[in-house]
Amino acid sequence: MSEVRRDIVTDTWVIIDTENDHVPKTQKRDLGESSDCPFCEGHESRTPNEIYAVRDGSAPNGPGWKLRVIPNINPILKIEGELEKFGVGVYDMVSGIGANEVIVETPKHIGNFFELAEDQISLVLRTYRQRIDDLHKDKRMRYILIFKNHGRLAGASTMIHTHSDLIALPATPVRVKQKLGGAKEYYGYKERCLFCDIMQQEIEMGDRLIFQSDKFVVVAPYASRFPFEILILPKRHTHSYKLIDEEEISDLAGVLKKACQTMYDILDDPPYNLILCDSPNLLPKVNYWSTIKSDFHWHIEITPRLYRTTGFELGTGFYINRIAPEKAAGMLRGSL
Amino acid sequence: MSEVRRDIVTDTWVIIDTENDHVPKTQKRDLGESSDCPFCEGHESRTPNEIYAVRDGSAPNGPGWKLRVIPNINPILKIEGELEKFGVGVYDMVSGIGANEVIVETPKHIGNFFELAEDQISLVLRTYRQRIDDLHKDKRMRYILIFKNHGRLAGASTMIHTHSDLIALPATPVRVKQKLGGAKEYYGYKERCLFCDIMQQEIEMGDRLIFQSDKFVVVAPYASRFPFEILILPKRHTHSYKLIDEEEISDLAGVLKKACQTMYDILDDPPYNLILCDSPNLLPKVNYWSTIKSDFHWHIEITPRLYRTTGFELGTGFYINRIAPEKAAGMLRGSL
Repeated sequence: MSEVRRDIVTDTWVIIDTENDHVPKTQKRDLGESSDCPFCEGHESRTPNEIYAVRDGSAPNGPGWKLRVIPNINPILKIEGELEKFGVGVYDMVSGIGANEVIVETPKHIGNFFELAEDQISLVLRTYRQRIDDLHKDKRMRYILIFKNHGRLAGASTMIHTHSDLIALPATPVRVKQKLGGAKEYYGYKERCLFCDIMQQEIEMGDRLIFQSDKFVVVAPYASRFPFEILILPKRHTHSYKLIDEEEISDLAGVLKKACQTMYDILDDPPYNLILCDSPNLLPKVNYWSTIKSDFHWHIEITPRLYRTTGFELGTGFYINRIAPEKAAGMLRGSL
Repeated sequence: MSEVRRDIVTDTWVIIDTENDHVPKTQKRDLGESSDCPFCEGHESRTPNEIYAVRDGSAPNGPGWKLRVIPNINPILKIEGELEKFGVGVYDMVSGIGANEVIVETPKHIGNFFELAEDQISLVLRTYRQRIDDLHKDKRMRYILIFKNHGRLAGASTMIHTHSDLIALPATPVRVKQKLGGAKEYYGYKERCLFCDIMQQEIEMGDRLIFQSDKFVVVAPYASRFPFEILILPKRHTHSYKLIDEEEISDLAGVLKKACQTMYDILDDPPYNLILCDSPNLLPKVNYWSTIKSDFHWHIEITPRLYRTTGFELGTGFYINRIAPEKAAGMLRGSL
């Protein structure tokens, strides 16, 4: 049998198969040779000049770094130029202004995020904060999306060396607007944060709780779109990732390492996306954003991509999920 | 460079790479043997009992048919039971009521839709109308989605024998609501159908027009989410596919055959989804639907799936499209 569950945050629906147990097999990735890898230390000349780096006094664009941020070599948006709007008959467009960066998470030839030491993951998380802070100063940038594509089915390129992608956008994405809308509506009649309430309920019910740390809660979302989807929520209510503090960074580093390693062990290195779901670049004069500080709550989504989406997902915006979140949480809990 | 284009119907944005010319290679599918295929004539006992068939007097569930509609052998929704709503703390769900049918488009072991004779495609299109008409009588069914998954990257199963999928849903999909909303808003200030205006503009501008027939217009949408995306609009304003007439069916059969064959020739058998975008099951007493007849306009989307979606699409609901629609239309026109 199946259940049709509503995602209360985005008001979309997911059809959950509550009976199936079959988990599709995945294909192991090939890390390749460090000598071929432009992200490895010593190969800095094979990438564009760095935007940001963590270095102990070494010169830019050479060896001696712990982490580097570089422009994407094939950027889809460019930082230079005016943000112009045009009409084309009934249609609208804006110029392709934005930023497209790559965060190279380690100088070593490592393919899996969870293989990094916790200190190194903390460095990555601190860099996320630094890049968002920096790019928010540019008011043309309405939203900074940081994400990871791991494995071909998750849309990853051939670059296996562990890295994150960043795209700064000149418009607030529709999925972010849906979330802001759902959170605002809930706050409007409850005067409580929707995400805080979800967290409270998941801790009490327990069947979708994967684990919790001092500062974070890790659950399988009630209306998971993908089998083994993971939602990570900070216990402290903060609307923006920019407000994450050093204690939360250290804690989150451990949480992410554990979540990604568990997924790797249980699902045999599945393809997945990791998405930092942050609030948009708040403009003080725009009333639309005025309530975000109270009703939005930043979070991280990890979505294994074991199945391809079909015409069903494209035609509806709904999802079919063949593994119940309660079952997924149980399996992920089992190995912790 | 790139342009960020707004889809006026759904209010989502697509980043279009206006410079790239590279088209990824596709992988040819293997049709396999007819003896292994449950959809071939003579193998009726390998499928569930038929729901509907076009037969010249032969008995159900045996040979002697031109087209069969059968239940999906692994249905995600089931027709039996009450449509019940439940609350789970802050969450909502409805029972998994619906229908999940497969339209087997020919008794012969044929893998490509365009290889069918036009008369046979007309039979398929008439069957779409019959199934929608029939399922709309059941008021639990709020939306009937008919679609095709062709090729693994488009989420197709291992069943290569040409067929369409049908899922009847107990809720109106979010993508359909977005389209209804965009169309209603446009009608509200222009008092004209948005789709009629789009069609008119595309015929006048010509750079995204792929071809037109007596009754249909075939274009590359201005904000195409996927390279070589195709939109097919009926010239006659009708909100519902149920109203398609016999002349339009014959004409559309030729249009679909030509569009799918062109895609096959130019892109070397690409994976694709085909989606019939129809209006929901109108309930006379619900005011919400009262304007759909004037402002919605049914259509067909064909979306080649040459790239995998990444964390960008998941996190934003926006798309990145590496082939400009004007270029795609030019290439598709070139072979006609």
